[in-house]
Amino acid sequence: MVNRHEILKEIVTSSGGKIVLLVMDGLGDLPINGMTPLMKASTPNLDSLAKESELGQTIPVLYGITPGSGPGHLSLFGYDPVEYKIGRGILEALGIDVEVEKNDMVARGNFATISDGVIVDRRAGRPPTEESAKVVQVLKENIEEVDGVRVEFYPGREHRFVVKFTAEWLDDSLTDADPQKEGNPMEWSKPLKPEAERTAQVVNKLIERIGEVLKDRPKMNWALLRGFSKYPKLPQFSEVYKVKAAAIATYPMYRGIAKLVGMNVLESGETIEDELKALEENWNDYDFFYFHVKKTDSYGEDGKFDEKVHVIEETDSIIPGILELKPDVLVVTGDHSTPCLMRSHSWHPVPFLIHSKFARKGLSKVFNEFECARGTLGTFYALDAMSLMLAHAGRLEKYGA
Amino acid sequence: MVNRHEILKEIVTSSGGKIVLLVMDGLGDLPINGMTPLMKASTPNLDSLAKESELGQTIPVLYGITPGSGPGHLSLFGYDPVEYKIGRGILEALGIDVEVEKNDMVARGNFATISDGVIVDRRAGRPPTEESAKVVQVLKENIEEVDGVRVEFYPGREHRFVVKFTAEWLDDSLTDADPQKEGNPMEWSKPLKPEAERTAQVVNKLIERIGEVLKDRPKMNWALLRGFSKYPKLPQFSEVYKVKAAAIATYPMYRGIAKLVGMNVLESGETIEDELKALEENWNDYDFFYFHVKKTDSYGEDGKFDEKVHVIEETDSIIPGILELKPDVLVVTGDHSTPCLMRSHSWHPVPFLIHSKFARKGLSKVFNEFECARGTLGTFYALDAMSLMLAHAGRLEKYGA
Repeated sequence: MVNRHEILKEIVTSSGGKIVLLVMDGLGDLPINGMTPLMKASTPNLDSLAKESELGQTIPVLYGITPGSGPGHLSLFGYDPVEYKIGRGILEALGIDVEVEKNDMVARGNFATISDGVIVDRRAGRPPTEESAKVVQVLKENIEEVDGVRVEFYPGREHRFVVKFTAEWLDDSLTDADPQKEGNPMEWSKPLKPEAERTAQVVNKLIERIGEVLKDRPKMNWALLRGFSKYPKLPQFSEVYKVKAAAIATYPMYRGIAKLVGMNVLESGETIEDELKALEENWNDYDFFYFHVKKTDSYGEDGKFDEKVHVIEETDSIIPGILELKPDVLVVTGDHSTPCLMRSHSWHPVPFLIHSKFARKGLSKVFNEFECARGTLGTFYALDAMSLMLAHAGRLEKYGA
Repeated sequence: MVNRHEILKEIVTSSGGKIVLLVMDGLGDLPINGMTPLMKASTPNLDSLAKESELGQTIPVLYGITPGSGPGHLSLFGYDPVEYKIGRGILEALGIDVEVEKNDMVARGNFATISDGVIVDRRAGRPPTEESAKVVQVLKENIEEVDGVRVEFYPGREHRFVVKFTAEWLDDSLTDADPQKEGNPMEWSKPLKPEAERTAQVVNKLIERIGEVLKDRPKMNWALLRGFSKYPKLPQFSEVYKVKAAAIATYPMYRGIAKLVGMNVLESGETIEDELKALEENWNDYDFFYFHVKKTDSYGEDGKFDEKVHVIEETDSIIPGILELKPDVLVVTGDHSTPCLMRSHSWHPVPFLIHSKFARKGLSKVFNEFECARGTLGTFYALDAMSLMLAHAGRLEKYGA
């Protein structure tokens, strides 16, 4: 891919209009009985917006590639997810609201069952979250540092937890401490370059210590650690796009990703209406608002068609409130598709609508997957959405004479 | 971007059909009262051509990126404008018909007002073109060389002029000699690499000499020099596409860009009808004709909707004349959009029509932005237009066995 940031650096200006990027997570879907949730939903506001907007559809990464939440959002924010990789440890940590700083390294942990050095269950029988949280508490009380490296534990769902290591010299070029397959002997973390040797020793020593502390438990008697990652250095929104950006999102992972790219994360409450209120209250202080609606994805993952329809209708109901603020640019899209039929993220293109006074409007009358596929914007990479929004907001100069 | 030239090198043949690339500058537009100029114009010939053609729309550089005339044309000619940058000095020089050769370096000049070393007006009060031309004449008479480097001055519009330096060893890796902001002290040109040190000295010495010559004038008493550029080395049409190419264009800048890529620039007269005549007269001597219509862009820049409509209608009227020559391939498109609403170039996709006996025709009945957005060619990079034209002209072999 062409490096979009290199091009934008030459032409982005620090003045211009206000932008709202409304992301309905996992918005795109597949028809069931001829209708997708977007088609089934009663969306009078989105449909009348469509008449005054340009439509298109985005490819989150590449044709056929299903993005995780990290790559899906990075693309929309204009960061090539193939170039900017966010370690799974970081995403897991962000997802449970762990603060990660410059000298920290995080890893995803699994409680596991070991017997005679062989991993017999990588998930320790999927313990209930509360039971697992108690074991995390035991680890907290018993282990605070390893070889001078501060160690902290954070409970996750079921068998999952997060470990945070803190020391100036940590290096995350490490292999996973995980045999991947059950019935295999424990696999220790290995350094991928000489500078990470010392970090690997600390990681492996920690696992041994955890094993000692938990050795008498029947199931949760071992830990696997994976996805070692330091805080990733991403170019910041204020530098690359010269906008003051705010994030309105209720789920920790999305708040975390927004923070990584330099957005101010606002108090956003719990409901979509709370989020609209946060937008209204902070309207004058920012140039760019990322507004995240989570539950379209959650219901897609659960295969709950009607509930997904309902979240879309709820989101439709706040469109007039957003328009009352008179954003210069309003984009309504998703970070990927999550078809109810598949109960998972998918690779399908994502509906995209851009509203501004410079929209080549007039072709479309409703907002759904099929209308977007025929829209005037065509099919494009989500990676191009940022430059499109900045252009519509009058924030880009001409490229070349 | 994939290097298209590398691929073409393997498959392009030197025989095949004749191609006409008709570029209506700034063709794409936005609807006003539901109609773009292309929709409003009465274009019976283009519409009946659309029925026998494939339609699509092009992205000149990237989504959201508004191209200058240089990048817009380079893309259409198949040269990635991100890779091939044409210095602003060169474009300015080409635009006023200055001949630039291998040992030349050109720069854009501004007459400015200096007071106690501070630039108080970067444009010297925007003098009338005639007045500025007289001052250029004074410079010509007083300065012919600096440190053995030959120096020539050419008048431009208002405060603008062009300087051409000639010596074998010149290096254009220089910063602009321009403080950018008024109220700042003069900024001298600095070399961006050691080899350009000597050139920077010549440039700065020239500015001092200009200052001496003009010191008693109240306003035009200084010069800022920017956009230093040597003649860019671009792969030539005859090499990369194996076609003998001619340019029919009435404006110097477009004649200049065509020359840079190795086209023969024909006597083209002043009107669209003159241009058609040039096409007819030279028909037998070339394989590829670039035919440029300027005023669609000029009227877009002036916000003159009806006049843009009229230029489109005038262009429509010569379509039968072009078809009578029986080109194997006729493309009708623009280099970018110039919406009357915006009075400037824009990033919006550009209508594209390709007519040949191998067109997948049948879907479209008219030629306009919306019909093109839904055309069988889809939305594609202008950079891909050349290979498409060559393919339709039977000038590309199969790629791979």
